[in-house]
Amino acid sequence: MESKKIVVIGGSAAGAKAAAKARRLDEFAEITLVQKAPDLSMASCGYPYYVGGVFDDRNLLLCTPTGVPRDPAFFDKAKAIKALVETEVMTIDRKEKKVVCRNVKTGDEQTISYDKLIISTGAKPNMPPIPGIDLDGITNLQSMADTDYLRHICDEKKIKQAVIIGGGLIGVETCEALRLAGLEVTVVEALDQVLTFLDWDLAHLVENHIQSKGVQVLTSNGVKNFIGKDGKLTGVELADGTVINCELAVMAIGVRPNSDLARTAGLATGKFGGITVNQYMQTSDPDIYAAGDCVEIPSIMSGEPVFAPMGDLANLEGRVAGENVINGNCVTFPGTSHTGICKIFDFAAGSTGLSTKAAERMGLTDYQTVVNASPDKPGFMGAKILVSKMLVSTRDQRILGYQCVGAGDVSKQIATAAMAVKGKLTVEDLINIDLPYAPSFSLAIDHFIASAHIMQNKLKGRMTGISAVEVWKKRENGEQPYFLDGRSPGEYEEMQLGIGEHLIPIGALRSRLDELPADKNAEIICFCKVSLRGYEAELVLRAHGYTNVKVMEGGIMAWPYPRKK
Amino acid sequence: MESKKIVVIGGSAAGAKAAAKARRLDEFAEITLVQKAPDLSMASCGYPYYVGGVFDDRNLLLCTPTGVPRDPAFFDKAKAIKALVETEVMTIDRKEKKVVCRNVKTGDEQTISYDKLIISTGAKPNMPPIPGIDLDGITNLQSMADTDYLRHICDEKKIKQAVIIGGGLIGVETCEALRLAGLEVTVVEALDQVLTFLDWDLAHLVENHIQSKGVQVLTSNGVKNFIGKDGKLTGVELADGTVINCELAVMAIGVRPNSDLARTAGLATGKFGGITVNQYMQTSDPDIYAAGDCVEIPSIMSGEPVFAPMGDLANLEGRVAGENVINGNCVTFPGTSHTGICKIFDFAAGSTGLSTKAAERMGLTDYQTVVNASPDKPGFMGAKILVSKMLVSTRDQRILGYQCVGAGDVSKQIATAAMAVKGKLTVEDLINIDLPYAPSFSLAIDHFIASAHIMQNKLKGRMTGISAVEVWKKRENGEQPYFLDGRSPGEYEEMQLGIGEHLIPIGALRSRLDELPADKNAEIICFCKVSLRGYEAELVLRAHGYTNVKVMEGGIMAWPYPRKK
Repeated sequence: MESKKIVVIGGSAAGAKAAAKARRLDEFAEITLVQKAPDLSMASCGYPYYVGGVFDDRNLLLCTPTGVPRDPAFFDKAKAIKALVETEVMTIDRKEKKVVCRNVKTGDEQTISYDKLIISTGAKPNMPPIPGIDLDGITNLQSMADTDYLRHICDEKKIKQAVIIGGGLIGVETCEALRLAGLEVTVVEALDQVLTFLDWDLAHLVENHIQSKGVQVLTSNGVKNFIGKDGKLTGVELADGTVINCELAVMAIGVRPNSDLARTAGLATGKFGGITVNQYMQTSDPDIYAAGDCVEIPSIMSGEPVFAPMGDLANLEGRVAGENVINGNCVTFPGTSHTGICKIFDFAAGSTGLSTKAAERMGLTDYQTVVNASPDKPGFMGAKILVSKMLVSTRDQRILGYQCVGAGDVSKQIATAAMAVKGKLTVEDLINIDLPYAPSFSLAIDHFIASAHIMQNKLKGRMTGISAVEVWKKRENGEQPYFLDGRSPGEYEEMQLGIGEHLIPIGALRSRLDELPADKNAEIICFCKVSLRGYEAELVLRAHGYTNVKVMEGGIMAWPYPRKK
Repeated sequence: MESKKIVVIGGSAAGAKAAAKARRLDEFAEITLVQKAPDLSMASCGYPYYVGGVFDDRNLLLCTPTGVPRDPAFFDKAKAIKALVETEVMTIDRKEKKVVCRNVKTGDEQTISYDKLIISTGAKPNMPPIPGIDLDGITNLQSMADTDYLRHICDEKKIKQAVIIGGGLIGVETCEALRLAGLEVTVVEALDQVLTFLDWDLAHLVENHIQSKGVQVLTSNGVKNFIGKDGKLTGVELADGTVINCELAVMAIGVRPNSDLARTAGLATGKFGGITVNQYMQTSDPDIYAAGDCVEIPSIMSGEPVFAPMGDLANLEGRVAGENVINGNCVTFPGTSHTGICKIFDFAAGSTGLSTKAAERMGLTDYQTVVNASPDKPGFMGAKILVSKMLVSTRDQRILGYQCVGAGDVSKQIATAAMAVKGKLTVEDLINIDLPYAPSFSLAIDHFIASAHIMQNKLKGRMTGISAVEVWKKRENGEQPYFLDGRSPGEYEEMQLGIGEHLIPIGALRSRLDELPADKNAEIICFCKVSLRGYEAELVLRAHGYTNVKVMEGGIMAWPYPRKK
């Protein structure tokens, strides 16, 4: 039997994984990896950390864990894969089943036949035609070349001011990197929040944290014009007319699928421009598979195709494609549940499943949300506050989504929630779930379980929640409910919302009911630092005949607006 | 309507939680908490960390997160709960529905009537009648008094040598505490391993880590005799005759349910001595509930009652009991999936579901295990190795259990696995699961997903695994398979098993096949640092006609025995 010819276009995450998986399943296949860039299997998610000086050894981005460069020699020897770098595939001849490649340096062309082809051409950064965008000093953080450029700037310490255009994942990670390297940084975001996988309130807590690190964050604003002198960037003019001086601008307004080659070859693409694949990662041509940031995959939440350019998914998709090109369509990729996480200075922010915004976009109405602010572990073990939002279906009480931000262990929270979404677990399932507890790792009742408890209290009608956003809107509309802050005088001295709240410590509430509005139907909104005492206050007031009592969910810790102190 | 009378016996985790929950559901119930110890709602899981000097403020063990002592005044004011401390319940009169209490200091007695009673009397440490056990210098770490005693010893720095009897959770946590405080510590464990929730191989990796911190760990040994002089401990004599000089011994050979009061009152107890409760946490008397370390609860894995004295479960059980005494039997407690975790110096060790040992005890045979050693995140982000064992049913491929030890993020791994067990997920479900990925938090393919991948490779027959324990046994039986170490010469120079292995780097394997045994049926066992290259070697050899090739699972990182270097 003649050996199978596998060609893989693109040697970053999905492509390298697909080629390696194919090799493991067929020692005698002829596997060729064609990569336009000079490097292979780059740890591209690590670029910002190298730029920011979290580590200094550039090789760590390009080597195996034992220090071997993942270069063509490594692919040849360890994987028996022929890797052609700095080589671009110009055309795919689907009829003849071959690809025409050109060396980007020498211009030499060669033709490679395939039995099965895998396209993993990745994504490319969006670069809108803003005047001045070609000025020297404007870059992305998408390639090793970009990384080297930015790292050089950070090392050289000549450039003082940078603007990041876009407050998404790459934008905030780049913001942290440049700030850690000592630059003055402004983030400009066209939407009304950073990190659009979060709801506005949680995203705003992240923005507050970023600003606490001396970074300026400007939302609902865009770049009208890049200003330059002698071909070099000197500033940006924003949509609202503001001019920010800067010598460096990083464009981070998202990426789009790099699917031109596939489209030119006549392969079907979807509404986000990604290559259309079935569950086997197979394109509209049965002999061509695709994986990674160039494809669209199903959302497990909506069933609709989405563009989800994430490094973990790229690897998993590549693994599926690599197996199917060898063994026929035998394994499937189920899609994404929209799980993501990022680190931003001392905070992390993550999400899985649906945010409120995503649920609204899907037209869902039968869901309930709850915000929980509470520590990740006991105070004596160095607790950090987490703020989470859980979203459940009111139809069957299934967990639809979970977001979490804060300085604590967000990663465990999101992993736990992602499993709950995958396992189609209900609030009832989570109420008494047996999670790992020891003081070094969690509270006796883990933050995630506590979120389920609060949700249960809401669903059972024991707690009437109101979000900080709704409270803010009430006040903007001129309403002034009776705000009851249930903390101690000492806590109140240290930190205050300043929304006309009345301080009645929970321990004094039962004996000070006469201070409350005489009208038992008056709206009373209770809170405390995290609104556990706020909830207790609600229960006390309800029991004493107050009919319109609410708890401001998450209390002061989830308040995304300025405080009096 | 007259207000309901609730009496709660025991005010640590379960009792305090039950009382608080009852109050939230009924503002007008008369709730009395009777506590023998002087303190209430103590953070007992934090005792070892206070002893070891992780924090110095004793109040943190006894206060709310905002610094208010959880004393009777707090319970009175904030919760409207009458808390009687230093008060012991002497008898329960089930007929008259009242309890007789006695103040342990004054001896004054009082009788309290109840409509519903909750027993949460906790557990008490096992203290076998070893000769000399009453000597001064022998203690537990179970109460605030024990904690104060040990902390005083650590602060005073007079005592130099300590022996911990028992290598369970409390034993290893106490070992760390005393070692951090500068004592010379020996741990003596009667069984052949510490931390019996782990399988022997993973537990032995933990033992190696403990020993690397200068602690002596003696397994399969017990205390025959405590040696003293003038009433003070001077040493312990072990079962094998060894004498260890020490001025301090901590008994940590487990706890048993403190169920005497319940048993005397005629309530049913189970085979572990715990109070028998139904799913509502209701005892054999419908007006008496019980929760916490004094009860037996169902194992979700076996359906059988077990004794699971864990702080998180106690809180959850207390919450259920607290709701049911107020609202009737409306909420249920499902039981434990045996999830646990502990920190030991730089390591953590956790488990959920079934270990191999637990599966054997249940008589299961249709399961498969796999060991995975791999980093928790990329090298450039400060990776730490994790070693995990996954156990799945070969009948339906459901995850039955997961253990994980190492210096990395064990907590997230165990939480993820606990959710997989709860969600009854299969290997197929986990292969492409969408977990939170960013370099600060995980590898692109998370350690947990990688475990599922390796399991899949085994289940599909692509990988034939052999455990380090099986390899060791082979060598003990005089067998000498061909051991193939697939690492680089540099790695080999640094670290070697020394079991007669042959170094053939994976990159050279295809060109050095002639060095392998001529007999294609000879047993060949491949490994590397974590056995990824070991697995690749297996595939290459199989493709070249070798019929009896195995991978030593987890490689050198999972090898629990001494190494040559």
